[in-house]
Amino acid sequence: MNYKQCAKTLLGHENILILTHKNPDGDTMASAAALCSALRRGGRTACLYANPQVNDKLRPFVEEFFAPAGYKYKYVVAVDIATEGLLPKGYEGLVNFCIDHHPTNSHYAGAELVRPEKSSCAEVVMELIQNINTEISREEATLLYIGLSTDTGCFQYSNTNAASLRAASDLLRLGADNAMVNLRFFRKVSRARLMLESMIYAGMDYYRDGRISVATVTLDMMEKAGATEDDCDDLAGLAGRAEDSVVSITIKEQEGGSCKISVRSNPEVSSSDICAVFGGGGHAMAAGCTIMGTPRMAKELLIQVIDEVWK
Amino acid sequence: MNYKQCAKTLLGHENILILTHKNPDGDTMASAAALCSALRRGGRTACLYANPQVNDKLRPFVEEFFAPAGYKYKYVVAVDIATEGLLPKGYEGLVNFCIDHHPTNSHYAGAELVRPEKSSCAEVVMELIQNINTEISREEATLLYIGLSTDTGCFQYSNTNAASLRAASDLLRLGADNAMVNLRFFRKVSRARLMLESMIYAGMDYYRDGRISVATVTLDMMEKAGATEDDCDDLAGLAGRAEDSVVSITIKEQEGGSCKISVRSNPEVSSSDICAVFGGGGHAMAAGCTIMGTPRMAKELLIQVIDEVWK
Repeated sequence: MNYKQCAKTLLGHENILILTHKNPDGDTMASAAALCSALRRGGRTACLYANPQVNDKLRPFVEEFFAPAGYKYKYVVAVDIATEGLLPKGYEGLVNFCIDHHPTNSHYAGAELVRPEKSSCAEVVMELIQNINTEISREEATLLYIGLSTDTGCFQYSNTNAASLRAASDLLRLGADNAMVNLRFFRKVSRARLMLESMIYAGMDYYRDGRISVATVTLDMMEKAGATEDDCDDLAGLAGRAEDSVVSITIKEQEGGSCKISVRSNPEVSSSDICAVFGGGGHAMAAGCTIMGTPRMAKELLIQVIDEVWK
Repeated sequence: MNYKQCAKTLLGHENILILTHKNPDGDTMASAAALCSALRRGGRTACLYANPQVNDKLRPFVEEFFAPAGYKYKYVVAVDIATEGLLPKGYEGLVNFCIDHHPTNSHYAGAELVRPEKSSCAEVVMELIQNINTEISREEATLLYIGLSTDTGCFQYSNTNAASLRAASDLLRLGADNAMVNLRFFRKVSRARLMLESMIYAGMDYYRDGRISVATVTLDMMEKAGATEDDCDDLAGLAGRAEDSVVSITIKEQEGGSCKISVRSNPEVSSSDICAVFGGGGHAMAAGCTIMGTPRMAKELLIQVIDEVWK
């Protein structure tokens, strides 16, 4: 289906429920909210699934669209959800329409608008809204800018392309409040986060002349910094800042004696091969796993495995 | 003069020398290099002033354009230089043509192309090159992307607008290597820098419930971190990351018993008013000064002054 046909399909339904994925990020929440706003402006009744996992940064932008208790929906739309396993529990098999940009989309919905060439789902929703209403509202432009900028790491991730920058330019022209979004999502952090970063950088370990960098976040560090999980956004990116790092590892101690591991790497080493040894997975340049044991044990095991995987 | 007239003027001269400003940043160096490349492709002899202050990050992109010793120039072009005081020493009164985007440009040159609506000088040079040659080369696109992205803080500073994002999109389409630029200028830092950031965050001071944040960088910290001036890019931005900060201060101890002070503030407080007390200056939201004395003394004096200036 093209954008026009999708818009027509959506406008042909009433009492729409829009779903966002588990562990929701800026792209799923803000794109869904923008779509909800546009459908309402198009005269439809539409609500967002009240995702209980939404974080404090995103909540103020999306909760006005949350479905009230007992909302009777007749048509279910999934936004930015690649597979049924990422749907909120209980909605498997119920999705009528899926809007997504993941190349890994498993085509689980009755109808779909999947555009893997887009760097964010916000860009897909942006074109869709232009076919629902003639103009994107200022509020929708800001929501779409949140989705686009967070999914591209403020235009620094490798998925950023000419089209994503062009879309960002158009959103600013439509009134997106990029100054506010930049402050809130990219610049400002809590004092606890700054203290946690201080401890992480102080405790970095380097191997093979710095080509392997390891950051460790213990429960004790979290407590000393006064940090909560809300202060831990993108911690996995810090270790890779070290200039010679080819493989970066972040070891985050969990309650109960395990460690959550994030691995990032340049193309010459496979992050997923490293994590597969411990039953984890992911992509060639970003993967994760869980290791039972202390952070120190986890680090030793990981270095051993990297010595095997990366000759 | 419009872009076409400027292009014609430049192409009407030979043995061109292109100047960059004191303490050169990405915008002056990379925009000048892109212009130099385009003029050479247009059949002109052109060289960059071999700015001795260029840093290690920028040098590999620009030094191929540096004027050889004894280069006999007949026509001098200034790029991104707002006032004669920012010219390299000895070139005062010699500038034939000035290309700039600063609203504060003092119109010191015989002819000029000053476009204050542009967020970077790279965007001015970009339009100019399109009038010198029909197409921007890949290498020039990368240089212009360096200028544009560094001058807008990778599209996060308040000068970022729809036109700057549109220009960035066009540069990617023309082959700019944004992945390499992002890694080099925004993502990767030395291990010494990570250690210095660790010490800075650990030593942050907060006043008025965190609305004033103070970062201190002592000579001792620099030595312990193994850091040099090359590791100190944008240190003045770190203190302002603290979420409640309205005024952020960075105190950098200098050899000889003085401290270099950077003040950043939201519009409700004037950074330049604070710095003026110590004989410094700047803008309402970013200013600087020097205070004789230890970092501790400087901090106490600054807090006193802020109590006067910000009631």
